[in-house]
Amino acid sequence: MTMPSIYETLNSQLGPGIVYEGSDASKARHLHDFMYTMPAGTTPGAIAIPKTVEQLSTIMRLCHENGQPVTPQGGLTGLVAGSLPDPGGVALSLERMRAVIEIDPAAATMIVEAGAPLETVQNAADEAGFLFPLDLGARGSASIGGNASTNAGGNRVLRYGMMRDLVLGMEVVLANGTIVTSLNKMLKNNAGYDLKHLFMGSEGTLGIITKLVLRLFPKPQSACTAFCAVNSYADAMNLLGRARKDLAGTLSAFEVMWPSFYELAQNAITNLPLAGGHPLYVLLDALGSDQDTDQVRFQGMMERALEDGIVVDAVIAQSGKESTAIWGVRDCVGEFPRLFGPAATFDISIPTGKIAEFVADCDARLAAKIKKSRTVWFGHVADSNLHLMAAYDDASKELAEQIVYEAVREWDGSISAEHGIGTLKKPYLSYSRSPEELEVMRTLKAALDPRGILNPGKVIN
Amino acid sequence: MTMPSIYETLNSQLGPGIVYEGSDASKARHLHDFMYTMPAGTTPGAIAIPKTVEQLSTIMRLCHENGQPVTPQGGLTGLVAGSLPDPGGVALSLERMRAVIEIDPAAATMIVEAGAPLETVQNAADEAGFLFPLDLGARGSASIGGNASTNAGGNRVLRYGMMRDLVLGMEVVLANGTIVTSLNKMLKNNAGYDLKHLFMGSEGTLGIITKLVLRLFPKPQSACTAFCAVNSYADAMNLLGRARKDLAGTLSAFEVMWPSFYELAQNAITNLPLAGGHPLYVLLDALGSDQDTDQVRFQGMMERALEDGIVVDAVIAQSGKESTAIWGVRDCVGEFPRLFGPAATFDISIPTGKIAEFVADCDARLAAKIKKSRTVWFGHVADSNLHLMAAYDDASKELAEQIVYEAVREWDGSISAEHGIGTLKKPYLSYSRSPEELEVMRTLKAALDPRGILNPGKVIN
Repeated sequence: MTMPSIYETLNSQLGPGIVYEGSDASKARHLHDFMYTMPAGTTPGAIAIPKTVEQLSTIMRLCHENGQPVTPQGGLTGLVAGSLPDPGGVALSLERMRAVIEIDPAAATMIVEAGAPLETVQNAADEAGFLFPLDLGARGSASIGGNASTNAGGNRVLRYGMMRDLVLGMEVVLANGTIVTSLNKMLKNNAGYDLKHLFMGSEGTLGIITKLVLRLFPKPQSACTAFCAVNSYADAMNLLGRARKDLAGTLSAFEVMWPSFYELAQNAITNLPLAGGHPLYVLLDALGSDQDTDQVRFQGMMERALEDGIVVDAVIAQSGKESTAIWGVRDCVGEFPRLFGPAATFDISIPTGKIAEFVADCDARLAAKIKKSRTVWFGHVADSNLHLMAAYDDASKELAEQIVYEAVREWDGSISAEHGIGTLKKPYLSYSRSPEELEVMRTLKAALDPRGILNPGKVIN
Repeated sequence: MTMPSIYETLNSQLGPGIVYEGSDASKARHLHDFMYTMPAGTTPGAIAIPKTVEQLSTIMRLCHENGQPVTPQGGLTGLVAGSLPDPGGVALSLERMRAVIEIDPAAATMIVEAGAPLETVQNAADEAGFLFPLDLGARGSASIGGNASTNAGGNRVLRYGMMRDLVLGMEVVLANGTIVTSLNKMLKNNAGYDLKHLFMGSEGTLGIITKLVLRLFPKPQSACTAFCAVNSYADAMNLLGRARKDLAGTLSAFEVMWPSFYELAQNAITNLPLAGGHPLYVLLDALGSDQDTDQVRFQGMMERALEDGIVVDAVIAQSGKESTAIWGVRDCVGEFPRLFGPAATFDISIPTGKIAEFVADCDARLAAKIKKSRTVWFGHVADSNLHLMAAYDDASKELAEQIVYEAVREWDGSISAEHGIGTLKKPYLSYSRSPEELEVMRTLKAALDPRGILNPGKVIN
């Protein structure tokens, strides 16, 4: 008698239409994510797509009993190969668990299944008269559960926080199938350990998030946007300090672009808001409650900055159309891979005050080891978050990564600001975490997933 | 040969002036907190007051080796008996570790030792041109480490969040003495599990916080305050929705007081802002950037609420002095124990939309079982947080607690909003947490403190 395969084991318990063979061509999309694919010739042992948390719990219980690796999958839009299944392992997709379960206007909360796309959540909030503020380019596909398990960021972190800050409660299925229901709707709740934080940002290695209680916000009634040039990073910091103070809680984006960014943007956009040739560019955005008074306040702040020489040139949007055009400069990064050529790309954090020095140092390090080194820098610097494209010419991508992550290590930065660790950044995790921190992570992993079946090969395990 | 006592063990390793005998009269303050004291005739086995994290680590290592219970102590201002030492155990005070180590204006962060009083932190931020927004009555004594380990709240949670939201990084000493340094200063950092959240709100049962990286904010440039009367809780919710929307991120307090509160306040304050007799009172506070324009916006919002009948009477502060007088109404609770007589007091959370019904139901339950039942209700309702004083007449405090916590359980509330669990609320933890949640908490406790020496008897262990 031969042992049943994991497909057979799961399928016999779950019934038809839930579990598929790993070689099933109709489910081939579960073998790759937005950027990466499973090794050639390999497939998962099974692809499970449950419709209910009870089915998902059964799948986990069976996999736990069989020591069977499981990789949870959301919208497959990650950038660090965090949802590629193990060859022979189980791909566990949340795509059929996507209901918006409840919106509570008084509590300003939404309960949603983890497989719902971010855009579905945004639209449901909008229809109920609220804003769900998390936003990122992959909104149409990225699942809200994936956003939580990677602690997603985006363009409005300054005003509303990371995904972690937008979650009040959750339901999670542990490695052994236990359903832990913690659908808290209260802002203040100090009844024992706050378990939800364990599962956010741990990329499916400690449990599988199946439902979320999200915080909703009033819709902003105004948006003020400016694009400006400054002479130095110190002036950008000065402008940030003024914007934080004078715009009292409404500043929602402070995006800095280095000259190489602006030069490349000239190839993507016909009418850039400002002439080139400046040392640094800043996009500011504020979301408020009254367009007329907010615009006066915003323009006043910008005018004082111009008078004081902190800002040397500026365009302030006078309409939604102009605001969209300004954001187009920042968002034209989608064109950059085509314009820039092959590059190593980075999502890193450096303490805000040290960013300018770090950029200079990192450029020097790259130039010293890579012929014709070219870089493009931009980032949500008020959140400490920098993005970098580095051309590696005839050197290797790995060399570029080694150089940049080594610099991040020496500058006390983080090798991952908002994309997570997944598979790709795992070799560098010790650059941003001490041996003691890694040991605590391993302790937690061993305690919550003693058989090591949850998303093996990712983050730390 | 007799075994050395824990005092002897620690003292011989730490040297003079760090460890004291439990019976040392000069250290008797470590035998009790703000409200409770150790059982009569009992003392700790030793009182340790290290000056450095290395000394603290040595103390933990020795206690771990000896299976010796340790209770960390901050400012001893807790309200749930969370820092009372075990008889024969070690009281470990952080009171000598109180340095402000660094303020980074560009990152808007402060690094501080955990024993520093909250007021020291507030003042250091103020002198550097920033606001550290956490604030509560015990600011002069409460330590910032205690604030973190209990995830403290207070009056500005609506604008700035709980203590958990104000911490970017920490240094923590584990049960076995391992020093875990995680002094992150970056808003975005997704390099592996975010360990700090484990130690916040776990009341010293998983590790001892020794340093904190705190977020600083620009000082508000304006404050607008109003006290008003509304005809129903539904109108209060309507007002909250408008204030959230129209004051765009500046609303910092929304305090609701029930009529019994206002009647009692009449005995504490000579000139109350409004006549009595209304069904509900609301204090609103907004912290902004420009007094003139913010006052116009605030008054406009209040005037529209009056015109629309949402608010039936209101006073808007026209000066800092008037604002202070309005806050005096909310803050006169300090006088209430004297005016009200013996009472069971509560710090609970109920989902915001259900609070009015909960209050009515809870009053009915108390009246059904306690003769001459009297209650005073007030709270930060936008945070879901309710406070209650319940006179128990010739019944017992325990009966009042049983009735109220039973109601909290049935209304899906939390038995602790901002005071923690400590010893006092431990019997009721299962009222707000499921068996599965408690099991995960125990798993974490066993993983991080396998010998169960950290603050035994508190929260869950």
